[in-house]
Amino acid sequence: MKKLEEYVRNIPDFPEPGIIFRDITTLIKDPDGLQMSVDGLCDMLKDVDFDIVVGPESRGFIFGVPVAYKMHKGFVPVRKKGKLPWKTVSVTYDLEYGSAEQEMHADAIMPGQKVVIVDDLLATGGTVEAIKKLVRKMGGEVVKMCFVMELAGLEGRKKNEDTEVDALITYPGK
Amino acid sequence: MKKLEEYVRNIPDFPEPGIIFRDITTLIKDPDGLQMSVDGLCDMLKDVDFDIVVGPESRGFIFGVPVAYKMHKGFVPVRKKGKLPWKTVSVTYDLEYGSAEQEMHADAIMPGQKVVIVDDLLATGGTVEAIKKLVRKMGGEVVKMCFVMELAGLEGRKKNEDTEVDALITYPGK
Repeated sequence: MKKLEEYVRNIPDFPEPGIIFRDITTLIKDPDGLQMSVDGLCDMLKDVDFDIVVGPESRGFIFGVPVAYKMHKGFVPVRKKGKLPWKTVSVTYDLEYGSAEQEMHADAIMPGQKVVIVDDLLATGGTVEAIKKLVRKMGGEVVKMCFVMELAGLEGRKKNEDTEVDALITYPGK
Repeated sequence: MKKLEEYVRNIPDFPEPGIIFRDITTLIKDPDGLQMSVDGLCDMLKDVDFDIVVGPESRGFIFGVPVAYKMHKGFVPVRKKGKLPWKTVSVTYDLEYGSAEQEMHADAIMPGQKVVIVDDLLATGGTVEAIKKLVRKMGGEVVKMCFVMELAGLEGRKKNEDTEVDALITYPGK
């Protein structure tokens, strides 16, 4: 049986020299790679009491929605500024390369709801830290963050020490 | 039992006066709404012989990935120019509001593969027409297109008469 990391394509020097980009398109185009990754994320959540899955645009949609579907939960998208059609709450934060503003619909999370964040990659942890702020603004609580991959050298866990973090593949570098 | 269309939020005058935007965020944040829509799309495909699901950024990811997951197929994302990290094939096309260039990885579809396109909305049909061109460039064949919603007044089916088209909700207008 092929291991999950063997489905990931490593692209050197993208988006800039010295960075190895971990490309999940080769993983998800394979039925077994997609199944293994979604099932692995669901396994992380089998003993977690939660109400809803939140995922950032757009690779967070790729993994977050099938997890929500399989576990019979709802899914809430976090999108770049100006993409959501209704009233929003927003937050500005630093990215690995630059900065960004992300939004959620103002009625996306109900007070007291337990939220799980799903994304493809934990890098510096800035994106999920920003999403936690949005969830808290609406009175929700982030109970766990689940990733397909983690770049341990960027120390995203340090920025999120108050939340349980799990990843299917851990790369030691950046 | 609530009907699928009751989960959709209707937003008048977005993105421009006279247009009613059909917002699926209220549908997917409800566990039953998400399940009903994904299961409905899978039902459309139960007698279809196909290899892979293709979905455009980013609401096509929301519905396409769980369909691929449930039916044990792979998923291929179509993204806006410059977002994919590896070699791409691209196509420029007209949108309902403006124009756009979309890309797929050059190894996304193998010659002879049978492709299903999944997206949230069939409007003018320009996006899926463009995706068909990309799939054909790589030697694949689009065997069916499945949508959660269809704006019948925009006649997207006319542009795609050579392909089977199905939608869970049909709005008569634009």
